[in-house]
Amino acid sequence: MTYCVAIISVDAGLVFCSDSRTNAGIDQVSTYSKMFRFGVDGERSFVIMSAGNLATTQGVIAKIKRDIRDNAETSLLTVKTMVDAADYIGELSLLQQHKLKDGGAIFEASFILGGQIKGDRHEIHLIYPAGNHITTSKDTPYLQIGESKYGKPILDRILTPTTSLETASLCALVSMDSTMRSNLTVGPPIEITVYEKDSLQLHRHQRFDGHNNYLKELNRSWDSKLNEAFNQLPPLDWPAESAQPDAE
Amino acid sequence: MTYCVAIISVDAGLVFCSDSRTNAGIDQVSTYSKMFRFGVDGERSFVIMSAGNLATTQGVIAKIKRDIRDNAETSLLTVKTMVDAADYIGELSLLQQHKLKDGGAIFEASFILGGQIKGDRHEIHLIYPAGNHITTSKDTPYLQIGESKYGKPILDRILTPTTSLETASLCALVSMDSTMRSNLTVGPPIEITVYEKDSLQLHRHQRFDGHNNYLKELNRSWDSKLNEAFNQLPPLDWPAESAQPDAE
Repeated sequence: MTYCVAIISVDAGLVFCSDSRTNAGIDQVSTYSKMFRFGVDGERSFVIMSAGNLATTQGVIAKIKRDIRDNAETSLLTVKTMVDAADYIGELSLLQQHKLKDGGAIFEASFILGGQIKGDRHEIHLIYPAGNHITTSKDTPYLQIGESKYGKPILDRILTPTTSLETASLCALVSMDSTMRSNLTVGPPIEITVYEKDSLQLHRHQRFDGHNNYLKELNRSWDSKLNEAFNQLPPLDWPAESAQPDAE
Repeated sequence: MTYCVAIISVDAGLVFCSDSRTNAGIDQVSTYSKMFRFGVDGERSFVIMSAGNLATTQGVIAKIKRDIRDNAETSLLTVKTMVDAADYIGELSLLQQHKLKDGGAIFEASFILGGQIKGDRHEIHLIYPAGNHITTSKDTPYLQIGESKYGKPILDRILTPTTSLETASLCALVSMDSTMRSNLTVGPPIEITVYEKDSLQLHRHQRFDGHNNYLKELNRSWDSKLNEAFNQLPPLDWPAESAQPDAE
């Protein structure tokens, strides 16, 4: 499995975070980056994250690169809007899935696309296996693909549409850390890219392996602060009257 | 859906927490308690929580009550150990599912059973739809049924085999709160029962509706403490050297 999350801050920019564990059954576990960056500094910047069948996602990313190299009529360098870019990736994904279709086997993949084209707003889109896509709203300033449930509560508690990029980055890393801790199919290295609104460049990217000191310190610090927070919660009082069991 | 969690503290006892939302499709939402208490004070105490098909779980609970009333040869009042009790519930569950079996329709249900029989240890067991069951370990001092992923990270971070009943209760309620917040199919009233080791009585039980002041205060307090904790996390530094995009 996989876990990828993208967060939008309307005022500040975008944060992308992905794991790198890929498995086909529990005894075939590999490491693949799931985060890809494309663009022309000063003109347009895109980050793509992928989840699902590895053959499909690699096929789609390879085609995106080929279309750029071959100056294809439609590529990430020619699309006019972020929505057009999402449509383009949705089409490539469907083509790739159909090419692979074989009896009942499923080669589905999901993508998150984020970035900005000069003159347009910064946006993130989630592209479903069916090729259609959704974007964020004021109430939901993030998108997830893969093993999304473990890391969702922390996003729901912390994020607002105007969260700073610093807080959004920490929130993405804590959400990832919670997911890795509760699900073995999500694992390091962890990649994070921060895109500053209107910068039209993707130079803030980091990759943390499993032994990274910062990740370890973040984990330790969050654990200890959560425990402190727990000790300050209002205690649960028990009424004096006792409830009887249902049957005896 | 449903969310139920049971926590064991080897030194102190057991905590049980369940939601009450039942749905068949999103337009047929009802409220049913999923927590049932049985026993004889001073002799034996059982708490059962259920998830899955409502007809199956109601059938199983009804049969448990009938076996007690009819002084059946095997009932919760005659079983010798907690494992025997788990076997008994597993058998009732299978019988009920087979009775209902109709073409390809699925009437599966899962149960958590916890409690203590005089002279034996306090234990919790998770009974799968297949009728088999597992218990806890030193590394995993809790069991969950239903929508378990959202509320798992907080359990993994806070619980140890010797957590106090107070902390375990708060942890169960925060785990429930996180799940309700991230998944609409889990909802109040919330029930919580605390069993003190060797007490052989079940008098600490509470039920909170959606407007309960304590639950609201707990939610508010946890949100504000999480945000405080976030503000104290070690900041993520960005190296001076910049990473280049994959393609341009």
